[in-house]
Amino acid sequence: MNKVGIILGSKSDVEIAKKAIEILKSFSVDYDFIISSAHRSPERTINWTINAEKNNINVIIAIAGAAAHLAGVVAAHTILPVIAVPVASTTLGGFDALLSSVQMPAGVPVATMAIGSAGAVNAAILAIQILSLTDADLREKIIAYKNNLSLKVEKDHCDILKDLHI
Amino acid sequence: MNKVGIILGSKSDVEIAKKAIEILKSFSVDYDFIISSAHRSPERTINWTINAEKNNINVIIAIAGAAAHLAGVVAAHTILPVIAVPVASTTLGGFDALLSSVQMPAGVPVATMAIGSAGAVNAAILAIQILSLTDADLREKIIAYKNNLSLKVEKDHCDILKDLHI
Amino acid sequence: MNKVGIILGSKSDVEIAKKAIEILKSFSVDYDFIISSAHRSPERTINWTINAEKNNINVIIAIAGAAAHLAGVVAAHTILPVIAVPVASTTLGGFDALLSSVQMPAGVPVATMAIGSAGAVNAAILAIQILSLTDADLREKIIAYKNNLSLKVEKDHCDILKDLHI
Amino acid sequence: MNKVGIILGSKSDVEIAKKAIEILKSFSVDYDFIISSAHRSPERTINWTINAEKNNINVIIAIAGAAAHLAGVVAAHTILPVIAVPVASTTLGGFDALLSSVQMPAGVPVATMAIGSAGAVNAAILAIQILSLTDADLREKIIAYKNNLSLKVEKDHCDILKDLHI
Amino acid sequence: MNKVGIILGSKSDVEIAKKAIEILKSFSVDYDFIISSAHRSPERTINWTINAEKNNINVIIAIAGAAAHLAGVVAAHTILPVIAVPVASTTLGGFDALLSSVQMPAGVPVATMAIGSAGAVNAAILAIQILSLTDADLREKIIAYKNNLSLKVEKDHCDILKDLHI
Amino acid sequence: MNKVGIILGSKSDVEIAKKAIEILKSFSVDYDFIISSAHRSPERTINWTINAEKNNINVIIAIAGAAAHLAGVVAAHTILPVIAVPVASTTLGGFDALLSSVQMPAGVPVATMAIGSAGAVNAAILAIQILSLTDADLREKIIAYKNNLSLKVEKDHCDILKDLHI
Amino acid sequence: MNKVGIILGSKSDVEIAKKAIEILKSFSVDYDFIISSAHRSPERTINWTINAEKNNINVIIAIAGAAAHLAGVVAAHTILPVIAVPVASTTLGGFDALLSSVQMPAGVPVATMAIGSAGAVNAAILAIQILSLTDADLREKIIAYKNNLSLKVEKDHCDILKDLHI
Amino acid sequence: MNKVGIILGSKSDVEIAKKAIEILKSFSVDYDFIISSAHRSPERTINWTINAEKNNINVIIAIAGAAAHLAGVVAAHTILPVIAVPVASTTLGGFDALLSSVQMPAGVPVATMAIGSAGAVNAAILAIQILSLTDADLREKIIAYKNNLSLKVEKDHCDILKDLHI
Repeated sequence: MNKVGIILGSKSDVEIAKKAIEILKSFSVDYDFIISSAHRSPERTINWTINAEKNNINVIIAIAGAAAHLAGVVAAHTILPVIAVPVASTTLGGFDALLSSVQMPAGVPVATMAIGSAGAVNAAILAIQILSLTDADLREKIIAYKNNLSLKVEKDHCDILKDLHI
Repeated sequence: MNKVGIILGSKSDVEIAKKAIEILKSFSVDYDFIISSAHRSPERTINWTINAEKNNINVIIAIAGAAAHLAGVVAAHTILPVIAVPVASTTLGGFDALLSSVQMPAGVPVATMAIGSAGAVNAAILAIQILSLTDADLREKIIAYKNNLSLKVEKDHCDILKDLHI
Repeated sequence: MNKVGIILGSKSDVEIAKKAIEILKSFSVDYDFIISSAHRSPERTINWTINAEKNNINVIIAIAGAAAHLAGVVAAHTILPVIAVPVASTTLGGFDALLSSVQMPAGVPVATMAIGSAGAVNAAILAIQILSLTDADLREKIIAYKNNLSLKVEKDHCDILKDLHI
Repeated sequence: MNKVGIILGSKSDVEIAKKAIEILKSFSVDYDFIISSAHRSPERTINWTINAEKNNINVIIAIAGAAAHLAGVVAAHTILPVIAVPVASTTLGGFDALLSSVQMPAGVPVATMAIGSAGAVNAAILAIQILSLTDADLREKIIAYKNNLSLKVEKDHCDILKDLHI
Repeated sequence: MNKVGIILGSKSDVEIAKKAIEILKSFSVDYDFIISSAHRSPERTINWTINAEKNNINVIIAIAGAAAHLAGVVAAHTILPVIAVPVASTTLGGFDALLSSVQMPAGVPVATMAIGSAGAVNAAILAIQILSLTDADLREKIIAYKNNLSLKVEKDHCDILKDLHI
Repeated sequence: MNKVGIILGSKSDVEIAKKAIEILKSFSVDYDFIISSAHRSPERTINWTINAEKNNINVIIAIAGAAAHLAGVVAAHTILPVIAVPVASTTLGGFDALLSSVQMPAGVPVATMAIGSAGAVNAAILAIQILSLTDADLREKIIAYKNNLSLKVEKDHCDILKDLHI
Repeated sequence: MNKVGIILGSKSDVEIAKKAIEILKSFSVDYDFIISSAHRSPERTINWTINAEKNNINVIIAIAGAAAHLAGVVAAHTILPVIAVPVASTTLGGFDALLSSVQMPAGVPVATMAIGSAGAVNAAILAIQILSLTDADLREKIIAYKNNLSLKVEKDHCDILKDLHI
Repeated sequence: MNKVGIILGSKSDVEIAKKAIEILKSFSVDYDFIISSAHRSPERTINWTINAEKNNINVIIAIAGAAAHLAGVVAAHTILPVIAVPVASTTLGGFDALLSSVQMPAGVPVATMAIGSAGAVNAAILAIQILSLTDADLREKIIAYKNNLSLKVEKDHCDILKDLHI
């Protein structure tokens, strides 16, 4: 079965990675997970990337902070779609990771998500949207997920209304 | 055949859009093109988005500047993967369009590219990478494209060497 | 009676919304309140907006963070004045929400307030200033409010003076 | 008849001001125009502001760059709605004027528009939206303007299509 | 005797103001202190400013956050040197107050200090440096203060050395 | 007679320095001028600074771009008031020079002006405001200058009015 | 034996300095340590710098926050390689210290590291890399250190795996 | 003889690279030059880096813009000192390249220079400073270069003086 590969640059960001994994699990999408750094373990990173396709990985999610080169390095070694989740791991609020991820030169795209947890959730959703292009079951699930987002907003509305009579 | 949908927020950014179109043409990938604004023609934008799937569009590229809501508005009305190209159309150097595109809330991803022309090229490449997951011909072409990037660098190197004896 | 419509993008920002509601209540101005997201519940947002005028809403306050498209999406579907309150809900300090709200293209204005609570208070005050253009009672109240701001500063001055003999 | 007051901080920004004036003229809305600086001619600025109401001004548009205090100073002396247009008149791309305009303290709102020409157009549109709350003719015109925005997008689309066969 | 005038835009920033007052007291320099806002109590602010010279004030320190117009408004109404202390009172880390203070137009200078407490200390030191141009006693004190800064660094060095054998 | 010392970090910024010199000349204030870098000619810079007082310099204006350390280095070696003019000499629009000038640590103030020409004009005006505290003639001139600023605004207003009938 | 010189601008940043010292100790590299400010104790700073070479210092690490002039001032007085560690000691997240350190003019380089602790570790590693160019033992140690970084990543991976079955 | 390796990410930045080469030539320091991208020709980049030491390269200068991963990727594969020159090749003024270069994680330092030409000059100077630690001839030359910087400032001063009688 097609899988999503998740590569995490540092164990300190594992809570962010879990947000993506939770989504994939809730959609019953298989995933591979590896901690590997673009700078501290570059060969490990490249080897994992080069073998991703033969390991049935279809989409890669790269999660990193600071000078976040991970998604770019991965994208340099594969033709699979690569999604970046910038992490706010320095005093610059993730601004460094965002620019390091998104400003890729022509020819080597990195699909950049929002900084932090929202970005990790969305990386998983985007990966599922890509897989669902050729997977009718998954397509049904993502439609249901989207409808549920809307229902959840209505529920939030009702929950909050009582509270508002300040 | 599967197509890429390109939606452009303003005719003033058409030169950026052409960069994406050139790439798609060079890969013989079909595309739909529409100029429609999230703010000035919202119904047109929503209608085009809602009908994208039945028009055989598999991936959407949204190109916009300033408070670039276009990709987000499109993503709100489809389950197709949506790619954003922020444009530097104000005095803030595209910084406004980048943040407006990338900082999407959990549940509604937008795959954000670099600001401007490099981003437009990469939006098309990413779309092709997604389509090539299930299209062997396209897959061969994208592998060739990647190899060619590398050969082009070597050629640039040789061209520049003569010039360097300052 | 004329009302102010308040639309909140996410229940997590309800404390900000309360600041606006408190002001409206203290001026006895009626308001409608809805939680609805531009991205997660777009149809709900558009429906509420389109019906705002017939529901006697004269001014709309849209409160949202991150890629804050809510005010822009609302403004795209109404001719009522739309006021945006950007919220600092990400690691970028509200900078993303500010630019996403304020940098609207020509033709579709969004009246942007300060980030956060001060902005929510001011959104309500601005709405009241607009309503008081044709409501003499409200006009008296807003004059009194402004005078009170000044008196409050003098009172603060007196309170602090004793404390200053360090 | 109700008027819009336009106050411009420096003659060097008159091209920006013209964008607002053109809109007001096209809607046949009367306006007062004054060049007066918050810093170089503060008394003139305050006098004009204090007398705005009795001069039938209903909404004020303040246009200024750099440390753009003009809108804030005007808002401190009136209960009329005050709209700010930040101008990019320094090397910081209007970022200074934007923050100086928008980050007003609780109690004294300034309705901030986009930096530069788009902001000037939108300041006029917002002023007209406010006036049209109690002016049925103006309301018809602003509805027509909005529809026209949408038609203009469709026309742009058609114009550009021929050009796209790269 | 010549005095320093300190004007504080909001009582919430009084801890910052105390840093300046402590310095002035340690140099036995007289000061006037007022809480008055550029926006909420503009007349009070202007009256205090206009009367500063006749109240023997030679230098003015204006302390404010957010869209910090206070120093600029004061500078517009006096020929005395005006020193600004930007305060980090919003989610933007004082960046808004810094730009609102420093980017003054030609003709109306505001001597801007660092954001926050360091800036408040320095505002007082600068005021004393100005007064000491014509006050030999104060000049001796400021020379002693500067020498003491250097001695303090040496003392810090000695204190820390023991601690460094990790 | 008391003088203003102007120190310029690089000859490439001489056009900015001229703006300050023009103002000083128009007020018949004497000045010393030196080109000297904090980094490339540090001893020259320190020597000039240490001797400033005995050369009758009362106020120092330091003009520099990029990592603008000049004002800080000068301030470290004198008790005279030091005014910084940050210059936009890099691709960061003067933002680097501004932060390098203004964020001085407690104890060593630098009076920072706006970036570029406006800042150079204002540095000279501030120096004159300081000197005029004890120079009645200069005080008359600065009052006249301020009045003239206001008259100039009125004249600009009249010049522009004819032009506005678009 | 060759040493690394560490100069710290303020005792408040000593925790950052310790990160560099720990690395040097673990490589048995000698170091000199001094607290001295570019602004508060400039002569002490210059004297230490001028004598660095004769004290067998080969590389200098300068650690400072805010308007971080320390590395630049040191670099102005030596031909030794100077490494800067910007510290986030203000409300601007180290952004001020970064730009003040890195944007040096042509001719006087400062090798700038990341903001904060990561930068301090890296300053020590870079100093060791420089020393190891002519020290075979140190070269072996730095190779081992790099290999260990990679092994550490693998170990982190294994530690985290159990934890991931959410 | 020991060499400096220069790696350039894109031929479009060759004018920046020439600034470094000119300096190296003027010091008669040998250099290797290669155009190779971290993203478009990653294997070429890694191979060149891995072989740098055996090719007698002692210091590496990496020049790149946008999401400038080049220096970080090189540093991941060598223990040689790596110097980064960020290039302003996008609409963000080099801010993206600066943060992508400087914010490296602990363990893998990149010595970051100023953005653009000044940074390229300084990269070469820093490389020479490193080589001159064990090369007495080069040491003499760099001392002469530094003295010359100072003399050049004095000459600039004299050239400009005539010009200043505005």
